[in-house]
Amino acid sequence: MKRILVATGGGDCPGLNAVIRAIVKRASQEKDWEVLGSIQAFNGILWEPQEIVRLDEKAVAGIHYRGGTIIETTNKGGPFTWPFKKADGTWDVADRSEEMIRKLQYMNIDAVINIGGDGSQRISQRLFEMGLPIIGVPKTIDNDLSSTDMTFGFQTAVQVATEAVDKLVTTAQSHNRVFIVEVMGRNAGWIALHSAVAGGAEVCLIPEIEYDIEKVLESIEKRFQHNRGFCIIVMAEGAKPKGGTVVGAQPDEPGYENFRLHGASVYLREALKNAGCQHDIRETILGHLQRGGVPIAYDRVLASRFGEKAVELVKEGKFGQMVSFRFPNIIDVSIKEAISQPNFVTMDNDLLKAARGLGITFGD
Amino acid sequence: MKRILVATGGGDCPGLNAVIRAIVKRASQEKDWEVLGSIQAFNGILWEPQEIVRLDEKAVAGIHYRGGTIIETTNKGGPFTWPFKKADGTWDVADRSEEMIRKLQYMNIDAVINIGGDGSQRISQRLFEMGLPIIGVPKTIDNDLSSTDMTFGFQTAVQVATEAVDKLVTTAQSHNRVFIVEVMGRNAGWIALHSAVAGGAEVCLIPEIEYDIEKVLESIEKRFQHNRGFCIIVMAEGAKPKGGTVVGAQPDEPGYENFRLHGASVYLREALKNAGCQHDIRETILGHLQRGGVPIAYDRVLASRFGEKAVELVKEGKFGQMVSFRFPNIIDVSIKEAISQPNFVTMDNDLLKAARGLGITFGD
Amino acid sequence: MKRILVATGGGDCPGLNAVIRAIVKRASQEKDWEVLGSIQAFNGILWEPQEIVRLDEKAVAGIHYRGGTIIETTNKGGPFTWPFKKADGTWDVADRSEEMIRKLQYMNIDAVINIGGDGSQRISQRLFEMGLPIIGVPKTIDNDLSSTDMTFGFQTAVQVATEAVDKLVTTAQSHNRVFIVEVMGRNAGWIALHSAVAGGAEVCLIPEIEYDIEKVLESIEKRFQHNRGFCIIVMAEGAKPKGGTVVGAQPDEPGYENFRLHGASVYLREALKNAGCQHDIRETILGHLQRGGVPIAYDRVLASRFGEKAVELVKEGKFGQMVSFRFPNIIDVSIKEAISQPNFVTMDNDLLKAARGLGITFGD
Amino acid sequence: MKRILVATGGGDCPGLNAVIRAIVKRASQEKDWEVLGSIQAFNGILWEPQEIVRLDEKAVAGIHYRGGTIIETTNKGGPFTWPFKKADGTWDVADRSEEMIRKLQYMNIDAVINIGGDGSQRISQRLFEMGLPIIGVPKTIDNDLSSTDMTFGFQTAVQVATEAVDKLVTTAQSHNRVFIVEVMGRNAGWIALHSAVAGGAEVCLIPEIEYDIEKVLESIEKRFQHNRGFCIIVMAEGAKPKGGTVVGAQPDEPGYENFRLHGASVYLREALKNAGCQHDIRETILGHLQRGGVPIAYDRVLASRFGEKAVELVKEGKFGQMVSFRFPNIIDVSIKEAISQPNFVTMDNDLLKAARGLGITFGD
Repeated sequence: MKRILVATGGGDCPGLNAVIRAIVKRASQEKDWEVLGSIQAFNGILWEPQEIVRLDEKAVAGIHYRGGTIIETTNKGGPFTWPFKKADGTWDVADRSEEMIRKLQYMNIDAVINIGGDGSQRISQRLFEMGLPIIGVPKTIDNDLSSTDMTFGFQTAVQVATEAVDKLVTTAQSHNRVFIVEVMGRNAGWIALHSAVAGGAEVCLIPEIEYDIEKVLESIEKRFQHNRGFCIIVMAEGAKPKGGTVVGAQPDEPGYENFRLHGASVYLREALKNAGCQHDIRETILGHLQRGGVPIAYDRVLASRFGEKAVELVKEGKFGQMVSFRFPNIIDVSIKEAISQPNFVTMDNDLLKAARGLGITFGD
Repeated sequence: MKRILVATGGGDCPGLNAVIRAIVKRASQEKDWEVLGSIQAFNGILWEPQEIVRLDEKAVAGIHYRGGTIIETTNKGGPFTWPFKKADGTWDVADRSEEMIRKLQYMNIDAVINIGGDGSQRISQRLFEMGLPIIGVPKTIDNDLSSTDMTFGFQTAVQVATEAVDKLVTTAQSHNRVFIVEVMGRNAGWIALHSAVAGGAEVCLIPEIEYDIEKVLESIEKRFQHNRGFCIIVMAEGAKPKGGTVVGAQPDEPGYENFRLHGASVYLREALKNAGCQHDIRETILGHLQRGGVPIAYDRVLASRFGEKAVELVKEGKFGQMVSFRFPNIIDVSIKEAISQPNFVTMDNDLLKAARGLGITFGD
Repeated sequence: MKRILVATGGGDCPGLNAVIRAIVKRASQEKDWEVLGSIQAFNGILWEPQEIVRLDEKAVAGIHYRGGTIIETTNKGGPFTWPFKKADGTWDVADRSEEMIRKLQYMNIDAVINIGGDGSQRISQRLFEMGLPIIGVPKTIDNDLSSTDMTFGFQTAVQVATEAVDKLVTTAQSHNRVFIVEVMGRNAGWIALHSAVAGGAEVCLIPEIEYDIEKVLESIEKRFQHNRGFCIIVMAEGAKPKGGTVVGAQPDEPGYENFRLHGASVYLREALKNAGCQHDIRETILGHLQRGGVPIAYDRVLASRFGEKAVELVKEGKFGQMVSFRFPNIIDVSIKEAISQPNFVTMDNDLLKAARGLGITFGD
Repeated sequence: MKRILVATGGGDCPGLNAVIRAIVKRASQEKDWEVLGSIQAFNGILWEPQEIVRLDEKAVAGIHYRGGTIIETTNKGGPFTWPFKKADGTWDVADRSEEMIRKLQYMNIDAVINIGGDGSQRISQRLFEMGLPIIGVPKTIDNDLSSTDMTFGFQTAVQVATEAVDKLVTTAQSHNRVFIVEVMGRNAGWIALHSAVAGGAEVCLIPEIEYDIEKVLESIEKRFQHNRGFCIIVMAEGAKPKGGTVVGAQPDEPGYENFRLHGASVYLREALKNAGCQHDIRETILGHLQRGGVPIAYDRVLASRFGEKAVELVKEGKFGQMVSFRFPNIIDVSIKEAISQPNFVTMDNDLLKAARGLGITFGD
């Protein structure tokens, strides 16, 4: 008999519920194993009264095709940085990690499965070092983790972005317009790169390659003849113009606040107009549409395998490990090592080179 | 033997291509009838060289499931307001309508089918009064025309908006957030009203009902207990707060420019925060995603019937008429009368009352 | 304070859950109104122990975008034909209607809302005549009821069928094939007619028009030149060949059993081959794919309005009435009259004539 | 200056058009390179008159989001087995490979890119051995090739199958039914395995594991209590019962013809009833719905990379090679070696083990 506690932290991601369901399904194959869920990451353990839910087969029935997470998630609080109001009315944070571990012992928790990104896994590692039997399940919709071939949610985000491009192509064509589609990716351009290739965009702007507005303009003009034509630009929210080439792009320049406020695509539109673009330019910011909704089959399979493997690791007592996909297997890697290896688009990346081969320009 | 010329004007709308295909399919049932298309509304006739394309069965194969219009569209130019540069370098507009009618006669055009909204049909009426044999096909994605039970494109826009709400519900739930979904509708709230009911939103804000920010806040708070809960607000881009209640809503107030620039949902977010809303609020502006993409079956059926009927009217010589849907038939109405009858959400509208019955609040 | 009991009977239909949710949402606007659900139509009342569930706001949260019905449905049992085993081991049916009404009184049920088709509403009428305060909500995915402009579920079925046609068009083109898509409709051809127009099919076969295999073959051949081309046939499951033209079509002919077993599309394929069709012919039977899944926005709006209106009728005490859509309002009609008015495709139907105008052939 | 000829052979597969578009896009980056397409695999070269089309950027605009192949495909004919009628009226096949190579030389073709499966690549290899400069692009919707980590089209088929399961779950639940979903896979169970995990099925039957009908029945019964419950079975079209356990499963047994005629799912339904299953059982055969339609983003990215790489190989003169995906790169492998290495589900496959861990039974 074992009692497992599950938590989900950070931004939501299509596939979270499939991981939770798989953990419950796998645990139900063992005699008398129980699964509990802590509401809003670890906060449910620390709240008074606690918010802990029983996750049995009935609770997880059909959740694999629902977006979000049934045990909620948050970026606030957590065992090491619990906010509290001081006597003078200002706020501070407290370390409640030892208290939390004591509470988990009191609850007879044998293992914790922590599903979350970078920040969440750093917490996992610290708790593991304090003696908590914990397993990590990676979650990053940006797919920016080199310790796994793929993370769940990414392909769904790419699919949503690609379907948006498909929709905008027909309206762009009909109106002879330039369309900018702003997708997720503050530091990693993977969603932009994949959806630009899948959607057949002409221009792709990513955080890893600073763009030259003149080069972007040149690519646009190639697509128009006598004012007829259209152009699709897929850009990551973190894409930035080349240092200093455009006023407002740098923190110490006038207009910078506007740049941050409006987002990358609105900034680009204005920059293109300032650079002399005569065409009608429109932008669409996909935002949360990429996070919500039904995960595609690919992500459900990956998420289900992650959840199943996490329980295997509990059974084997391999704590401090994180599940990972190394084609064609799900393996485990050390949380400690995993969290220090980001995965960005490099200049020699095979897909980037293919995209260039297909005529997609990156503004460099 | 007849030669029909088709034009599409104004913003694109899912189903335009289905109308075009139906016109061609119907005409091909008659002996030696031909269909031509003018590129970018009537501009293709006036340009030198002209941009006129042959629309035969091959040209329209499979276009009914594509968004946009294969003969392009525009809001610029037109026979009555053709822009030209004067000797002093400034721009003016010229009336080229008589020239255009002569050109159509020279091209042996027997009938013109003009697919377009309010503005386009006003042009149709003027041309008809000048003697041009013209048939109108109504196009308004907002469904704001009382002379027809329904216009094509509307149900696709509602579907896109509803799917967006579905996606945002799961992320709202997972993060305990308030989500504002901004949909089309500058003057008419039909898309917002339909998608709020279909998506199960809690609040719906439309141009026809000025909202009281306190009432909106109240509706939000009802959905939260101890900071847990979520709330979906569907709002039309033209929804406005009650006169004077919030600084910046009126043209003569500071911040008004910001209100126009950011759009209705960003404005609402700020207004809610200013009114004391403590919850995390996010907004998504659907924009062009509602116009592009594959029309749903409902719109393809309606658009196909409109196109088919338009050719029937050509055959019957009923010029100056516009096709219209009066369940269960497609009929024809006078263009002149049709364009003067808008259709807004009224306080006694049956759907509005049903929405209130379902607990949806409109901020009044 | 009122207590309403809801039941769903007959085949499931997209939108059932939206009706249920709307009933609960509307009832929650009244002080102390309660909603209960009987599992599997009225069977839940008659079973021992009973299967009655409380339908509060939590129970119906988010169900409007789920197919099926959370209170289950069935075609078996019912108050007038309850199956029981006789002493001699054979089965008979008993009339338990009076017992059921007594039980409902004992449960303090003030009103029953019965969501169901033809058969279910006949039961409603009989129970109403026995004194039960009952309201009907029509449910027929075939849209074959003349007392309402539209029934929920129909547009979703048409959408699913149309998307299937879209998918099959590309494979038909690539392989130069004839594809038969068999859709629902035993007696009414509405789904076939709408999806044939929306999908751009060349042939549409419906129960209301017996088809001549030679005419179908002729339509196919027109689409091929030198063995290249393709043809899409949308056919209702109830479409039948002209009397006697093909061996096996009539009950007293050899091969009839095969015809019934294989379905209309397999029969047609064989008949086409026997009639000399040399092209590769494939068929796809959509079956239950048309019933399941997420209802489109149109159906959710209609279903929500039906549910809301049903509770209005309870409030007004208008028992024995059925909700109905008469554009643009939801009205109520007498159940008694409603169930006697089917709605089939007639030869002068406007949509049928438009389909012919578009070049679609019906095999007559 | 180079002239490349492209051909697509075998069953169509989502992503074929994305490969073709990528070839054209990549070739257009080189000075004066041309791309031609042969209609219906190599048949277009051999027909008189030939059917060869120019594939320039205009011809491939927007085709990446369309299913099928714009240059058509076929399983008939081919250079080594060209059918012809002998003097005595019977049919025979001729080897026209040398003639075809001569024709390609006459057409100044510098390289051939052959997109196709097993059979097509065997033809590629033979032509390569005869001296034709040829590059292979693998195409198998079943993903049954060990020389590449993934083939395009597979994930789209899994997505379609999973969406079908999602739809059938709601109707199964509402009616307390057993649903059998028959998916593609004559010899390899990958589509069934992936969609069973993604869809949350209870039973998965694949060609690699003969099923015991009693075990399947047992799994079904576990899902029902007092006749309430439901069960989803995903089965490959090639799934077979254990040798001899059911009459009709073997070629020399009565009923075998029926088994072949009706397909695996109809057979299973009857076998379950014969074995005593009392529940309502329905089956859905997805068939061609899995091949058609819009490829998902994953497949478009993979297909685009395959096409781009194929042109790279032409540039490098690496003929006789086939493109292949070895995460994260697209590489090339020898066609000769590639075609001899199938990829079936083995008992120690990691995904199969995970599926069992999740409680999915395979009837063994």
